[in-house]
Amino acid sequence: MSTLTATVEPVPENWLGLGGRGLTSTIVAEEVEPTCHPLGGKNKLIIAPGLLSGTVAANSGRLSIGAKSPLTGTIKEANAGGTAAQMLARLGCKALIIEGMPEGDAWYTLYMDKHGITIAEEKELVGKGNFAVVATVEARTSAKHGLITIGPAGEMKMLAANISIKDPDSHLRSNGRGGLGAVMGSKRVKCIVISPTDDKVEIANPEKFREANRAFTKALVDNPISQALGTYGTNVLVNIINEAGGLPTRNFTAGQFDGHEEISGETMHDMIVEREGKPKHNCHKGCVIQCSQIFNDEKKNYKTSGFEYESIWAMGADCCVDNLDCIAEADHLMDDIGIDSIETSVAMGVAMEGGLLEFGDGEGICRLLREEVAQGTPLGRIIGCGAASVGRAFGVTRVPVVKNQAIPAYDPRAIKGIGITYATSTQGADHTMGYTIATNILGVGGSVDPLSHEGQVELSRNLQIATAAIDSTGMCLFIAFAALDDENCLPALIDMINARFGINLTADDVTNLGINILKTERAFNEAAGFTSKHDRLPEFFYEEPLAPHNVVWDIPDEELDTFWNF
Amino acid sequence: MSTLTATVEPVPENWLGLGGRGLTSTIVAEEVEPTCHPLGGKNKLIIAPGLLSGTVAANSGRLSIGAKSPLTGTIKEANAGGTAAQMLARLGCKALIIEGMPEGDAWYTLYMDKHGITIAEEKELVGKGNFAVVATVEARTSAKHGLITIGPAGEMKMLAANISIKDPDSHLRSNGRGGLGAVMGSKRVKCIVISPTDDKVEIANPEKFREANRAFTKALVDNPISQALGTYGTNVLVNIINEAGGLPTRNFTAGQFDGHEEISGETMHDMIVEREGKPKHNCHKGCVIQCSQIFNDEKKNYKTSGFEYESIWAMGADCCVDNLDCIAEADHLMDDIGIDSIETSVAMGVAMEGGLLEFGDGEGICRLLREEVAQGTPLGRIIGCGAASVGRAFGVTRVPVVKNQAIPAYDPRAIKGIGITYATSTQGADHTMGYTIATNILGVGGSVDPLSHEGQVELSRNLQIATAAIDSTGMCLFIAFAALDDENCLPALIDMINARFGINLTADDVTNLGINILKTERAFNEAAGFTSKHDRLPEFFYEEPLAPHNVVWDIPDEELDTFWNF
Repeated sequence: MSTLTATVEPVPENWLGLGGRGLTSTIVAEEVEPTCHPLGGKNKLIIAPGLLSGTVAANSGRLSIGAKSPLTGTIKEANAGGTAAQMLARLGCKALIIEGMPEGDAWYTLYMDKHGITIAEEKELVGKGNFAVVATVEARTSAKHGLITIGPAGEMKMLAANISIKDPDSHLRSNGRGGLGAVMGSKRVKCIVISPTDDKVEIANPEKFREANRAFTKALVDNPISQALGTYGTNVLVNIINEAGGLPTRNFTAGQFDGHEEISGETMHDMIVEREGKPKHNCHKGCVIQCSQIFNDEKKNYKTSGFEYESIWAMGADCCVDNLDCIAEADHLMDDIGIDSIETSVAMGVAMEGGLLEFGDGEGICRLLREEVAQGTPLGRIIGCGAASVGRAFGVTRVPVVKNQAIPAYDPRAIKGIGITYATSTQGADHTMGYTIATNILGVGGSVDPLSHEGQVELSRNLQIATAAIDSTGMCLFIAFAALDDENCLPALIDMINARFGINLTADDVTNLGINILKTERAFNEAAGFTSKHDRLPEFFYEEPLAPHNVVWDIPDEELDTFWNF
Repeated sequence: MSTLTATVEPVPENWLGLGGRGLTSTIVAEEVEPTCHPLGGKNKLIIAPGLLSGTVAANSGRLSIGAKSPLTGTIKEANAGGTAAQMLARLGCKALIIEGMPEGDAWYTLYMDKHGITIAEEKELVGKGNFAVVATVEARTSAKHGLITIGPAGEMKMLAANISIKDPDSHLRSNGRGGLGAVMGSKRVKCIVISPTDDKVEIANPEKFREANRAFTKALVDNPISQALGTYGTNVLVNIINEAGGLPTRNFTAGQFDGHEEISGETMHDMIVEREGKPKHNCHKGCVIQCSQIFNDEKKNYKTSGFEYESIWAMGADCCVDNLDCIAEADHLMDDIGIDSIETSVAMGVAMEGGLLEFGDGEGICRLLREEVAQGTPLGRIIGCGAASVGRAFGVTRVPVVKNQAIPAYDPRAIKGIGITYATSTQGADHTMGYTIATNILGVGGSVDPLSHEGQVELSRNLQIATAAIDSTGMCLFIAFAALDDENCLPALIDMINARFGINLTADDVTNLGINILKTERAFNEAAGFTSKHDRLPEFFYEEPLAPHNVVWDIPDEELDTFWNF
């Protein structure tokens, strides 16, 4: 972007076997100075489809985006569905590397097709929300064009800004965490438009691939958690986590929320059906789980999609808002502004504790989003820079963050395994890095008592390794439920990779890929100045017992630090 | 403060030989968990006079205040003049340790006399500026009572909040840096009132003490830099540093300021004389340098005192304001709000770069201080949390901070030695930690070319060690000019310490004291998670050449890291 030029380069030998997170993290580790300013010219934004993206493999449409995070200061990868991963793969693009920074105030749109990339100055879309960007770009090109975009939050380099990806129905998915939208904004790229192509991804052994995909798809479809996700969305978790006493409520001061029924997946499902929305909806072609949904308002008009447990918990229980319509409006606003719903909602909870709003004031949240965050007022910027930013500005010390990133929807006092993940993850607090809820609560892949120390470090480690590998395939993380419990699932996935590239990976190779990714990421963070002292939960988790179990975070630091013994 | 009780305890054996910074840093290192939240109940605020405080030794009235800094996350000591150090010492107080945190919203005033401490709920002073606090407390007690206080910034736990100490004329001195006022605010202590006493500090060998003090005083009085400081104040430096091309201008984009004459010490001196202020003024009894002054407004009414080079540079050159009256008004406001003038002014420079104000808009700065910072509006809180906070909120990447603390009035590209101090100091960017300007620019203690690599690490190291020792004596750092250049000065200082306590310290003992303090502080920081990766200047110093010398920061990291080889 410094010279406003784009080149197409052959893939270096040592990157050939990598995709998704494995590739983004490798490129960031090789090419980005760990101590650089994340919003300066030395950071790079890496966009990479997974190893299986672009094929017909079920659930293979995740797009990884990586950089040094301006929120955490660590390495970062965030992935999301939408159409872009499959389209980039079919264009033969292994990764898009956006580097440098233009002089001046102009904004740019990147147009990608099979011939390469054109960088065009962008005037029309500057300052526009994501929904306007989708509509305008579709009018300018076609509904079939892929789109990766930032909203006003990314333009303003807010640390919670996300990057949005258009889905097959022109709705949005979010590469949510770590402020990657601010990195894209710092490079003054408003959006990336991808031309459709009839080209297909080459498959070395098509027959073997088809067969493996059949077995893989069957494993996903048969899995009871996949099915629950299809019916209720991820929001099926509200009642489950509330029952477990681990639903962070009122800025992490309790583990159960009185209003949990009002915001539950079951309630949401009934509302969707009654209002003629869609309880099931796929965020990318080939998804057989379909945890997304179309949520309509009372007048049966479209309000939001991809209405996730995390967002609903954060606006709901954490801010004590028990009104799904209000939460849906907030979700819609955050999608339009282009800002992470977890970070922003947890920031609202901290703001409530700081006295900015009453707990439960969902209208107030929407007003702050509309009039402050979207407008970039000083208060909007404080909120838009996340939970730690709000805590700092308003002198609140109960700030649920690790490495400056908001802790998501599972209280680590009541579900210890996820606390290990929050603390040790290479990317700050992030449940998706090693989703121990599967085993701690859902009984998937065995059973580990959520309240005991026993086995939590090993559980989180195994899941973090597996996740790093899965995030490299282009697969949605939700294949993990089947992978952990159905013996046919993982072999079929590996068979697909082998059939795609004509290679012979074993399960051990995949584990080693995961290990290598984690170690690469950890080494980057160490070179950026992170130590085990940063692998800690905030003080209040050690000190304030959480109802109803009345438990504190009590895993000793020494035990935590054994995480990296592998 | 958790139990609202105060106890008087005997001094532990191993603290007996310590005072000032040596004592505050030792107590913080021994009693504060390095990873604790600086504004939580586990941090402690330590207030300690120096080894010679309370005696008649010239320039021995500095009071050290230490804690874990909420701004930098490191250990912190800030010292200032005023009457409190001498009064505490005469009350027989070696250190005041404020720990814990009260429940509820009440504020407290601590009253100290020779019998101990009374903790009284404070209602009248809550929300009041420092000048009102002084007036009210004097009316409540007497003008002779000592006072340590925070303004609204400290109450709001702004990260740039300072702690103010009353001087003999009821004006204020500031323990400025590192946000210690927020720590005091987090403990809900509005102010500390100290009763005068007729008691004297015990001197083991009075005759030897008097003799040593005579020699020491003569060394100070004879020193030409002491004399210049007396005539022009610290602001004598504007023209000198401008001439050297190291006066950071327009948010650190140039090393010389066109308006330097308008804000220089020479101009200020003439204005003071013309307006019947005082060019010379002592911030504590016994000061023979008298670098403070009384600066009146055009109508010859008192406007401000302790009008320092650092504040004048920061509001002046760094924000391009060439009007001393405007800068004096800002200085007055910051003193009243109780906020560090370096951090806040540098934050204004970053805000100007971010488009909040035009460079040069001094009226705008005063308006922001009055209407935003003092009122605790969202914008006021962004500014009140310092330069890094403003950079984060407004997406500005040219942010001159080290470990989150604003870089003061000497550009490290043009004066390399001070860059070593900024980078390696245990307390973030702070010129007073190892004032290489003495040798790099003023030719004191030898001469080291400011633009060369040669000898800078050693220079900064020697000065940082010596400073840690001086900061333990209660002495003003400005004795260093005489100490470096007059062979009679340092022996006389050591003689005074020996005569005071009846001991036999050598010059090596004093050096070892300095070394031990630095190592204690460094160990605390390492345990808090700091590594050599944090001992770095911001990226732009490496990349943007500074006029007029057109130099970048080019001391290799490996060379920097040799600093700690001792």
